Amino acid sequence: MPHINLPSEIPGIGSAFAFRPETAKPMRELAHVLLFDPGSDASLNSRDRELIASYVSSRNTCHFCQASHGAAAAHHVGGSPELVDAVCSDHSTADVSPKLKALLEIAAHVQGDAKTVTPELVDKARQQGASDLDIHDTVLIAAAFCMYNRYVDGLATWQPRGEEAYKAMGKRLAESGYRQPAEPSK
Amino acid sequence: MPHINLPSEIPGIGSAFAFRPETAKPMRELAHVLLFDPGSDASLNSRDRELIASYVSSRNTCHFCQASHGAAAAHHVGGSPELVDAVCSDHSTADVSPKLKALLEIAAHVQGDAKTVTPELVDKARQQGASDLDIHDTVLIAAAFCMYNRYVDGLATWQPRGEEAYKAMGKRLAESGYRQPAEPSK
Repeated sequence: MPHINLPSEIPGIGSAFAFRPETAKPMRELAHVLLFDPGSDASLNSRDRELIASYVSSRNTCHFCQASHGAAAAHHVGGSPELVDAVCSDHSTADVSPKLKALLEIAAHVQGDAKTVTPELVDKARQQGASDLDIHDTVLIAAAFCMYNRYVDGLATWQPRGEEAYKAMGKRLAESGYRQPAEPSK
Repeated sequence: MPHINLPSEIPGIGSAFAFRPETAKPMRELAHVLLFDPGSDASLNSRDRELIASYVSSRNTCHFCQASHGAAAAHHVGGSPELVDAVCSDHSTADVSPKLKALLEIAAHVQGDAKTVTPELVDKARQQGASDLDIHDTVLIAAAFCMYNRYVDGLATWQPRGEEAYKAMGKRLAESGYRQPAEPSK
């Protein structure tokens, strides 16, 4: 049961967003830019960005975020539930590019103690073709999911079990992104 | 030295904000709502909110965020550098209200493993007068600083040493908040 009075019909982070629209808006916008619409300079695609999000959430053992962003990654072109599982189990052996492997390694360090991101880890990612923007966005996706995961778990939000709920969520996120679909007029 | 090409004259998170204005905007807005202008329903004042931010940053050993938000807390009415130090050293003996002590205890759990926030910790805060909004905002401030701290340290941003730089920063944050002061037209 949630620690505060959240709308019971909305799962996960959505219930906290409904409780506090003023903070929901920038949190949705940040996810939209980082995961869905990073801009024309970005070389990391949304599948890879959602894989980083699901991977970090898995390391933080946040079921809701791991499952929903995993489902989004699986829905994007080149994604599948098996690939998401492989990345979360052991990113070093998953069927992803050497660049993404090097970025996932950086994300793992940010998730733990961000001071352990070394110039060597960053150089390794650069050698595999990562740009400054790729490195920046990887660090920020990993950092941001250390927030989203703690928000979801720290309020003890309702997190459905079973794949079906997340499959529909992943499809919606992968197709439409994170901005509020239609702002009701007040 | 920063891991990516950040503007060298800007310290801490500001250099990363300058690198990526699209993500800076929602991150600034979130801090503005949580710390500076939480709305008329909020019962936690900005000094207490900045104390929570500095406390969590201290637990994440992020010098830039601890010092800048500590300086903001010190600049607000009822704040002082000594109070900030006392809260960061041992919140249970610091000269703050029982309500804030109970909320700092929740923040500490969010900073570690957010799943360890128990109904008992939340009840204790309620018994000291904390509202649902106070509890929500405490959880989100703690979660958000797990992001800001990792962003600052994961990119190895330049973090000035010495109190003076932070004193000016704290004054500016406490008086004007976190939104971009003047958006240059493009």
